[in-house]
Amino acid sequence: MSSEFGKILKVSVFGQSHGTAIGVVVDGLPAGEKIDPEELQTFLDRRRPGRDPLSTARSEGDVPEFLSGLEGGKTCGSPLCAVIRNSGQRSGDYTELADKPRPGHADYAAWVKWNGLADMRGGGHFSGRLTAPLCVAGGIARQILARRGVYVGAHLNSVAAVSDRPFPLYPTAELFEEVSRKPFPVLDNEAGGRMREAILAAKADLDSVGGVVECAAVGLPAGLGEPMFDGVENRLAAALFGIPAVKGVEFGAGFAASARRGSENNDPFVVKSGKIAAGTNHAGGILGGITTGMPLVLRAAFKPTPSIGKPQKTVSLSAAENTELQIHGRHDPCIAHRAVPVVEAVTACVLLDLLLEGNHGTF
Amino acid sequence: MSSEFGKILKVSVFGQSHGTAIGVVVDGLPAGEKIDPEELQTFLDRRRPGRDPLSTARSEGDVPEFLSGLEGGKTCGSPLCAVIRNSGQRSGDYTELADKPRPGHADYAAWVKWNGLADMRGGGHFSGRLTAPLCVAGGIARQILARRGVYVGAHLNSVAAVSDRPFPLYPTAELFEEVSRKPFPVLDNEAGGRMREAILAAKADLDSVGGVVECAAVGLPAGLGEPMFDGVENRLAAALFGIPAVKGVEFGAGFAASARRGSENNDPFVVKSGKIAAGTNHAGGILGGITTGMPLVLRAAFKPTPSIGKPQKTVSLSAAENTELQIHGRHDPCIAHRAVPVVEAVTACVLLDLLLEGNHGTF
Amino acid sequence: MSSEFGKILKVSVFGQSHGTAIGVVVDGLPAGEKIDPEELQTFLDRRRPGRDPLSTARSEGDVPEFLSGLEGGKTCGSPLCAVIRNSGQRSGDYTELADKPRPGHADYAAWVKWNGLADMRGGGHFSGRLTAPLCVAGGIARQILARRGVYVGAHLNSVAAVSDRPFPLYPTAELFEEVSRKPFPVLDNEAGGRMREAILAAKADLDSVGGVVECAAVGLPAGLGEPMFDGVENRLAAALFGIPAVKGVEFGAGFAASARRGSENNDPFVVKSGKIAAGTNHAGGILGGITTGMPLVLRAAFKPTPSIGKPQKTVSLSAAENTELQIHGRHDPCIAHRAVPVVEAVTACVLLDLLLEGNHGTF
Amino acid sequence: MSSEFGKILKVSVFGQSHGTAIGVVVDGLPAGEKIDPEELQTFLDRRRPGRDPLSTARSEGDVPEFLSGLEGGKTCGSPLCAVIRNSGQRSGDYTELADKPRPGHADYAAWVKWNGLADMRGGGHFSGRLTAPLCVAGGIARQILARRGVYVGAHLNSVAAVSDRPFPLYPTAELFEEVSRKPFPVLDNEAGGRMREAILAAKADLDSVGGVVECAAVGLPAGLGEPMFDGVENRLAAALFGIPAVKGVEFGAGFAASARRGSENNDPFVVKSGKIAAGTNHAGGILGGITTGMPLVLRAAFKPTPSIGKPQKTVSLSAAENTELQIHGRHDPCIAHRAVPVVEAVTACVLLDLLLEGNHGTF
Repeated sequence: MSSEFGKILKVSVFGQSHGTAIGVVVDGLPAGEKIDPEELQTFLDRRRPGRDPLSTARSEGDVPEFLSGLEGGKTCGSPLCAVIRNSGQRSGDYTELADKPRPGHADYAAWVKWNGLADMRGGGHFSGRLTAPLCVAGGIARQILARRGVYVGAHLNSVAAVSDRPFPLYPTAELFEEVSRKPFPVLDNEAGGRMREAILAAKADLDSVGGVVECAAVGLPAGLGEPMFDGVENRLAAALFGIPAVKGVEFGAGFAASARRGSENNDPFVVKSGKIAAGTNHAGGILGGITTGMPLVLRAAFKPTPSIGKPQKTVSLSAAENTELQIHGRHDPCIAHRAVPVVEAVTACVLLDLLLEGNHGTF
Repeated sequence: MSSEFGKILKVSVFGQSHGTAIGVVVDGLPAGEKIDPEELQTFLDRRRPGRDPLSTARSEGDVPEFLSGLEGGKTCGSPLCAVIRNSGQRSGDYTELADKPRPGHADYAAWVKWNGLADMRGGGHFSGRLTAPLCVAGGIARQILARRGVYVGAHLNSVAAVSDRPFPLYPTAELFEEVSRKPFPVLDNEAGGRMREAILAAKADLDSVGGVVECAAVGLPAGLGEPMFDGVENRLAAALFGIPAVKGVEFGAGFAASARRGSENNDPFVVKSGKIAAGTNHAGGILGGITTGMPLVLRAAFKPTPSIGKPQKTVSLSAAENTELQIHGRHDPCIAHRAVPVVEAVTACVLLDLLLEGNHGTF
Repeated sequence: MSSEFGKILKVSVFGQSHGTAIGVVVDGLPAGEKIDPEELQTFLDRRRPGRDPLSTARSEGDVPEFLSGLEGGKTCGSPLCAVIRNSGQRSGDYTELADKPRPGHADYAAWVKWNGLADMRGGGHFSGRLTAPLCVAGGIARQILARRGVYVGAHLNSVAAVSDRPFPLYPTAELFEEVSRKPFPVLDNEAGGRMREAILAAKADLDSVGGVVECAAVGLPAGLGEPMFDGVENRLAAALFGIPAVKGVEFGAGFAASARRGSENNDPFVVKSGKIAAGTNHAGGILGGITTGMPLVLRAAFKPTPSIGKPQKTVSLSAAENTELQIHGRHDPCIAHRAVPVVEAVTACVLLDLLLEGNHGTF
Repeated sequence: MSSEFGKILKVSVFGQSHGTAIGVVVDGLPAGEKIDPEELQTFLDRRRPGRDPLSTARSEGDVPEFLSGLEGGKTCGSPLCAVIRNSGQRSGDYTELADKPRPGHADYAAWVKWNGLADMRGGGHFSGRLTAPLCVAGGIARQILARRGVYVGAHLNSVAAVSDRPFPLYPTAELFEEVSRKPFPVLDNEAGGRMREAILAAKADLDSVGGVVECAAVGLPAGLGEPMFDGVENRLAAALFGIPAVKGVEFGAGFAASARRGSENNDPFVVKSGKIAAGTNHAGGILGGITTGMPLVLRAAFKPTPSIGKPQKTVSLSAAENTELQIHGRHDPCIAHRAVPVVEAVTACVLLDLLLEGNHGTF
C-alpha cells in the first residue's frame, strides 16, 4: 500500500469504506494558519453524495473530527489528523462480490495482490469514499493558498458527449467561487442541463457515464517545479492518478496539441502592463516542468462508474468459470461531477507542496 | 533540479546539450545480467536524428561509454554509469536566444527560476538530447525484462490528424520487434506514409507537428503496483511527463472512456484456457493502480516541436518589450516518431522497477 | 514536520501531547497477518509510565483504538490507523514555559522554527508521549517478524555509570522474552538494582540520569540492505534518532571498535554445522551496510531527561534577558528504561521494512 | 544498490574500485555558484593516500573531470557530473579473495546478496576509493556554504587509545583552516604525534587501528530540520553511516551524555550580546532534531581497517571449510585520518541540502 503523496507537505489517507473510520494525516502544514471550519465543510459538501438524483442515495455525513494539528483553530506545527467515522455500513450488499470480481473495479487485481486477503467490500481502500479525507486535506490547502493569492478552481468539462465551455484565458477567483456554488459545477448552465440529462438517461438504463474535470490555478509565481522528473506536471499527474477512476491527465492543450502545428501551439510571449505573459496558454502554465506564471490548466478524465445495475459478464473466482453478476445497492450513475472538488483538492495539495518547497534555482 | 526517477531502480540523467558529455547513472540493477551491446545500440539508433529528412540534420553518435556497473559484459551490482560525449557543439546558433525566450520552450520559465544563470543554449538540461541517456537506461531495462518474458513496444499512434491503427488486444513480442525495425514506426504503413507527408508539409512551411505515441507491455504478472498514490499509473505518468514535450498521458481507453457508458467501458472478466482474463482491455491492464495481467497500454501526447523556422512573437528580456524571433539552425519538424523508443525506454525502466519491488500484498 | 519513516512499510506518527489524541498510520503492512491484541497491549505496557517510583506519576492508558487496517483481527491490506485518546491534560503546568525555553528541550529551536506559533506545552509533537504510537507500530511489526522467526529484544545497557552485562553472542527469543517480563529490563538483576538506586538518587536531587539501550535481532537472513546510503545501519540510525533524547547510535562494537586493532575487531568467519558464521560479532551483524546473518546488535544513547525539578538558568524570550526556571509537575528521573521497548519498536519496524523490500541483489 | 543521499541536493556516487572510472552526480546545486578548482583540489588532496608512511602506497590521482553542470567555472543549474578515471588497477592482488571472504569486509554479505555475481575485487562498490567522489561533492558544497558564512571543519578526535583535545565551544573558520593544512589533522600536535606512533606500531605488526573523527559546523541558522524522523541528526546519521567503516555516530555529548545527570547535561540558555545562545553545547547544536544556532558537533567512529597483513581465519566459500587468509598488497594501517575530509564532505552536503530546503515552520 502507499496511500501518500507529497514531498514537504505529505498527505496520507487511511481507511476502508466499511471500517470504523476513514481519515487523513497531513504532515508539513506550516504553523499559525487559521482554518475556517465552515468554509471547509462547504468544500467537503461539494463532493458529498445524496444531494440530488444524480448521485447515490447513501448519506455520508463527512464531518471530520480533528485529532491533532490544530490549536485554537490554527495549525500548530504538528501533523494534522482528521477522521470521519463510517456509519450505515451495509456489508450485506457486498457478499456476492467476494467471489465475483466486478468488471472495471480493482477487485480482481486486489484479489491477486493480497491472495484474497484484502477487504474488498465496497472497494475497501479503493473506495471512492477515500476521496472525502483527500478533500479535508485539499480544503485546508486551498485556504492556505488563497491567503497567498493562489486560487484553485474546477468545473465539469464534459460528461458523455456533452462539453462545457473551457475556462477563459484568465480565470478568476470569483469565477471559481461562482462555479463552486452551483449545484452542478459547469460554466455553461445549458450544457450542464444536457449533462444532467445524459446522467439521468444512463441511470434509467441501470448504466453510468464518464466525464472530464478541468481544473485551473491562478496566482502561482513563475519558476516553481524542477525539470525532467520532479516538475509540476510529474507531481500533479502522479497525485491525480491516485483519484479513483482517473484514466488520463493532460496539461494545457494536452492531447489536442498533438494534432496541431508548432506555429499554432506555441504561446507567444508578450509584454503586458510591464510584465511578461503569454498571449495564449496552450502550455497550461507549465513549460519544461516549470511554472510560467500563466494560469495552470489541467484536465483529468474519469471513466464511467464501474458499478452499474445492468447484468455483467464476470467469473467465479472459486469455480474458475464464467458467470454473470448483477450489482445491487445504490451507486452513482456518474462520479465526474462529484469529482470536481476532489481534483481541486489534490491540485491544491500539490501546489501548496511546491510553494512550500520553493524555488531552489538559485540560493 | 531533479533528474531522477525510480524507487528500487533509480535512473538519474545528467548533462546539458552543450556541455562535455551527457549520461545516466542507473542504480539498483540486479547483478549478473548480460547486456548485449549491439542490441542496445540498435535500440539507441531508433531515436537518433539525422537518419532521414524527417529529422534534424545534426548527427549524434550516441555511442555510450560505460564507466562503471559492468564487468565482463554483465551487470556487477554497482551503479552503472554511461556517458555519451557531445560533439559538434555550435553554441553560436544560440546567442540570440539568451535574450529572446523561444515560445513553447522552457527558456522563460528557466530564466525566472535560475535568475538568468542557467545555461539555456540548445535547451540546456531541457534538451531533447537528454533522451539519449534515458534510452541507454531503458535499453538495458528492456533486455532484462525480455529475459523474464516481459516485452515493451510502441508505435506512432498519430501525427497531426493522421492516426495509425491501435495495437491489437494482445500485441506480441514479434509485433513489437517488427515495428521497431521499420524506419517509420507504425503498424499501418499507409497511415505512416500520410504521417510522413504531414511532417514534410510542416517542414516545408518552416513549421512542425505533434503526435501521440502508444506503448504496450505484455507478460506482466497481475498484482504489481500499490493502490492510490503509488500505483502503476502514478509511477508511469510521473516518469513519462519527464520526457520533453509530453503534455498528456492516458491509460487504456483514457480520455475516450470519459465519453462512454459503464456497460461499454467495463472489461468483462472471462475464463480463457483456465486463466482469468478480460474480454476487452479498456483498462489498459491496470485497475485501481494494480496490474491485472492484461497487456499494459498507454499513450503519451507530444506537442509539436516548439523550435520552428517561422518568425514568432516573443519579448526581449533585457528591454522588456515585444519583439520577434526567427530560430535558425536545424530542428526536427516532428519529434513524436523519434520519441517512440524514448517512451518504451521510460516505460521499461518503470516496469523493471515495479518488478524488482515486487508484490508486497502478502508476505 | 516529517513524522514518518520507512520505504515499503511507512510509519507515520501524529499528535501533540495536549491535543485530542495521538496516533499512528502504518502503511504497507502485508495483508492476512493476525494481530494479537493482548500481546500488543503487554508490549505497550512496557513503556507506560506510572508503574513504579522510577517514572512519572502521570497515568497514561495507552489503549489504542484501531480505526482502519484490521478486519476480523487480521491486517486487511489497507493502511492501519490506531489512535490513543489523550486524557488528564493539565496545560496549566506548562504556562510559564511559553516564555522560558527549557534547557535541553526543543522549546527554543521550535520557537525559532515556528515563529512562536507551535504548541510547545508538554513538548507538543516532541513529547515522549509520541513513543506510544511508535510502540503500536513496532508491536505489530514484532508479531509479524516473530511469525517468520525474526525476534527483536532489548535491555538497559547502562544507566549513569552502571552497566548491565552485554547480550551473549547468540541471544535467543527466550532471553528476549525473559528480559521483557522483568519490571526493570536488565540481564543482570544486581546491576539493575544499582541502576534503580542511581535513578532514585537523581530523583531525590530533583535531577535526572541518562542511559543506553542495547537492542538485538536474531533470525535475519544475510544479504538485506543496500551498500552506502541505504544500508541497514543508515536506515536504523535515521529512524532511531527520531526517538526523543537519542544522541548516539552505534552498531556492534561501535565506538569501542575505534580503539581496537584490526586483528582484534575483525570477526573471523567459521564454518559451523555446515553454515558460515562469524566467531565474534564486533560487526553487529552488518558489514558494508548488509546483514551477515549474525545477530544484529545496536546501542542507542539516551541523554538524561531534560525536565528536572532543580532550578535552571534560561532566558525570557519576551524580555530577551537571563532568568531562572523551575519546572514543576511530574517528570521521569530517567527515560532510558522506558525507552527499551521503544528501541525494539523502531528496530522492528525498520527490519520488517527491509524484509518486505527484500534482497534485490539478483533478480 | 542505493548510492544516493539528499532531498533537494542529491548526491549519487558510482564506480567500482577496479572499473573504468568512479564519479558522482550532484543534482540540485543552485545555479551561478563559482567553483574554485584549486580549492577543490586542495580539499581532495587531504584524503588522498600515498602522501606519507601512514597510508597505502597506492598513488591515486583523484583529479576530477567535470562532464556537466559547470559553465564558465560556475554551476549552471544542470546536474553536475564529475568522474575520476581509475588507473594502476592490479586485480591480480585480489584473486584469492574471490573464494575467501576477508574478515571485517563486506565480501561475504555481498556474496550472499549478489549470489556471487558482484565484483568484489578491492571492495567493488564498497571500496574506500568511493569516498573520492564524495569529497568532490562535499568540496563543492563547502565552497557554497562558506559563501553564506557556514563553515565545516573536522579533526581526528582519537586513534586507538590516544585522544586529541575536543573542539572549543565556538570553533572558527580559521581553526578549521589551520587544522586542514596540517599533514596530520589534529588540534594538539603532541597527541597527533602519539597517534602517528600508534598507527606505525600497528603497521609494523601488519595490523591496523581505528579512530574517531569529530566534525563541527558554524554559522548555521536556528530552526533547520524537522522533528522526529527528518531532523538534522537523522539525516546526518543516515549519510554518515554511508562512509565505509563508520560504526557509530553521536551528536554533542553523545554516548557520554548517557552517564550524566540532567543538571550537568542540559545547556543553559543565556542572552549574549543581545542574542540567545547556550552556555555549554552538550546538545551539539541540535535539540529535537532542529538546529539551535549553536555550533553543530558530531563524531563518527571508524573501525580499524579490516585489510591487515596478519594471517586471519576465514572460510573457503567453494569448499565450505575453515581456512586461513593472508591479505597481500598495500593497505592503510589506519583510515581515520584520511576520513577527516570525508566526514566534512558528507556533513557539508547534508547541511547544504538542509539550507536549500529551508525552514518550513511557517510560510
